[in-house]
Amino acid sequence: MSKYWSAVARGLTPYVPGEQPKLDRLVKLNTNENPYPPSPRAIAALRDELGDDGATLRLYPDPNADRLKAAVAHHFADCGLAPANVFVGNGSDEVLAHAFQGLLKHDRPILYPDITYSFYPVYCGLYGVDYEQVALNAQFEIEVGDYLRPNGGIIFPNPNAPTGRLLPLAAVERIVAGNPDAVVVVDEAYIDFAGDAIPTAAALVTKYPNLLVVQTLSKSRALAGLRIGFALGDPALIEALERVKNSFNSYPLDRLAIAAGVAAMEDAAHFDTARKAVIGSREALVAEMGKLGFEVLPSAANFIFARHPQHDAGTLSAALRERSIIVRHFKLPRIDQHLRITIGTDAQCMSLLAALREIL
Amino acid sequence: MSKYWSAVARGLTPYVPGEQPKLDRLVKLNTNENPYPPSPRAIAALRDELGDDGATLRLYPDPNADRLKAAVAHHFADCGLAPANVFVGNGSDEVLAHAFQGLLKHDRPILYPDITYSFYPVYCGLYGVDYEQVALNAQFEIEVGDYLRPNGGIIFPNPNAPTGRLLPLAAVERIVAGNPDAVVVVDEAYIDFAGDAIPTAAALVTKYPNLLVVQTLSKSRALAGLRIGFALGDPALIEALERVKNSFNSYPLDRLAIAAGVAAMEDAAHFDTARKAVIGSREALVAEMGKLGFEVLPSAANFIFARHPQHDAGTLSAALRERSIIVRHFKLPRIDQHLRITIGTDAQCMSLLAALREIL
Repeated sequence: MSKYWSAVARGLTPYVPGEQPKLDRLVKLNTNENPYPPSPRAIAALRDELGDDGATLRLYPDPNADRLKAAVAHHFADCGLAPANVFVGNGSDEVLAHAFQGLLKHDRPILYPDITYSFYPVYCGLYGVDYEQVALNAQFEIEVGDYLRPNGGIIFPNPNAPTGRLLPLAAVERIVAGNPDAVVVVDEAYIDFAGDAIPTAAALVTKYPNLLVVQTLSKSRALAGLRIGFALGDPALIEALERVKNSFNSYPLDRLAIAAGVAAMEDAAHFDTARKAVIGSREALVAEMGKLGFEVLPSAANFIFARHPQHDAGTLSAALRERSIIVRHFKLPRIDQHLRITIGTDAQCMSLLAALREIL
Repeated sequence: MSKYWSAVARGLTPYVPGEQPKLDRLVKLNTNENPYPPSPRAIAALRDELGDDGATLRLYPDPNADRLKAAVAHHFADCGLAPANVFVGNGSDEVLAHAFQGLLKHDRPILYPDITYSFYPVYCGLYGVDYEQVALNAQFEIEVGDYLRPNGGIIFPNPNAPTGRLLPLAAVERIVAGNPDAVVVVDEAYIDFAGDAIPTAAALVTKYPNLLVVQTLSKSRALAGLRIGFALGDPALIEALERVKNSFNSYPLDRLAIAAGVAAMEDAAHFDTARKAVIGSREALVAEMGKLGFEVLPSAANFIFARHPQHDAGTLSAALRERSIIVRHFKLPRIDQHLRITIGTDAQCMSLLAALREIL
């Protein structure tokens, strides 16, 4: 603390991301990264942008990232979306931050689940957004009826994190339709892992002017290292985000991120293969974890949320760590006996299972 | 405007960056980019990070960008700086935004020049920071005495933009020393072009706990396309910026930006050659512009700020544009008869001069 800090800086409780250890040979199942490399077309696009001497890097990027907006809109063309429905940012965290500041800060408190992405209360602290946490039910599900009351906005991840539970699209629509005067943000970081068909709320964007859908290229497109996220919504919502962005940083996405992002969005085949591989590994892992006595919540994400009735989660996490396997354990009410485990390659899943068999 | 916008979004007047036209064959002298490519070592580092298949891009970057902080600190080792004195962000615009929110928002208004970087009032709007603009003198110089009065903070570019005028380091120190209760932000985007010796206020950081120096790799290191900026200050100031950053976006710098940034900071030889080439071109251009009757302010930057007593600046700008040469013309009080012209390659400078000879 220092007299030079603003009142805002004094009041903050910053978000703590999962650790990014600098050791090799770890089985890193703690930050929900994709176990497979990104699209080869994205890597080729990066090499193209670099050229012989990287001469284009001396120039600012396109501040509007028009090519990336077009590629995202094209991916969602079946939903009737155009570039004017797309906002892009430096990771979906930046997109969410702008949404809190530009669309979720009103007189009434916003609503979000009591167990959810732990960055939401941090954004509220940063921008002075009042909030109420709404308890998930005993099965860690969102109850639609709880969100049909006066509020300043609503945000929830779908599938939720760290539970992995999916709210069906019809239920999402009931929340959006039931709140015509508030913005509903559906944070779909993990939606591409929900199943063969992707139940994205992007399909509802042209129908509801109060719906903002946020996605990321960090998970299903394996580009966490490049920081690319986007939002889909009515042009009036997108315009609010653009105004905030252009009052913060004109060029949040660099030239390389734009080039790779465009190519990754265009490579539909790689996207589909990689996400289905993760889904397959998840189903196999869930079955094996069950055999070991774990209770695993139904997951629609690239992670599972599991507890063992006979073993303390903190102890298990520490024992895995001794075996160079890192998972995430949240010391928070209601979930301190759960572990969140990212779906790795099949070899990593086998290492995890072997270690658990040793420990249990 | 929409009922869904927050009061903040409604009240914004976003920054308008210089245009980034998508046409080839332009002589683009409007956004102060470096005319030379970045360090070959930076490009090699990018290729190394990419490897064969870009597999590391599936992983989040180091949220603290420790390697980059170390490289920046090493560059300023003569100033006695360590990594704890360094903050890094997604371009110096992001660094400045966090400084406005975390260090410049207090009860009293902050002070900055009436003619300066036009993003400052935008940040004030975004974060509700009260401000007073302090008039530059008739020679467009900062008068130290004007900044020795009660305030909530001070910020100015040095050299100033768009004037290019340098405030000598001793004068900067008088402002910093005269305001022990307020944070003084010295925005040194262009300082590396000031002369053979670089009069950076980084040399004062260990002496004054209220000084924050902000720099960028966009200009002298020719990496505008990658968005890398940093701040230097007392660890308590850096901590405020970290708290804001970690409440906004844990990973603002991507893996490629970190890799290239480290290599660019380490390549002292390329840095020195490139910046001195720009300084040489500037001095030659200023001499030739003088022969054409232009009045050119003394510039310590990679641009010049010039007016012609017999020719309207808007007309000149339009006539240059017809000849595919883009410069920046601000339609603002006191400076609407000036043009800001980026220093290009010597060939680009000759094209500019040839066009001006045709027009005048």
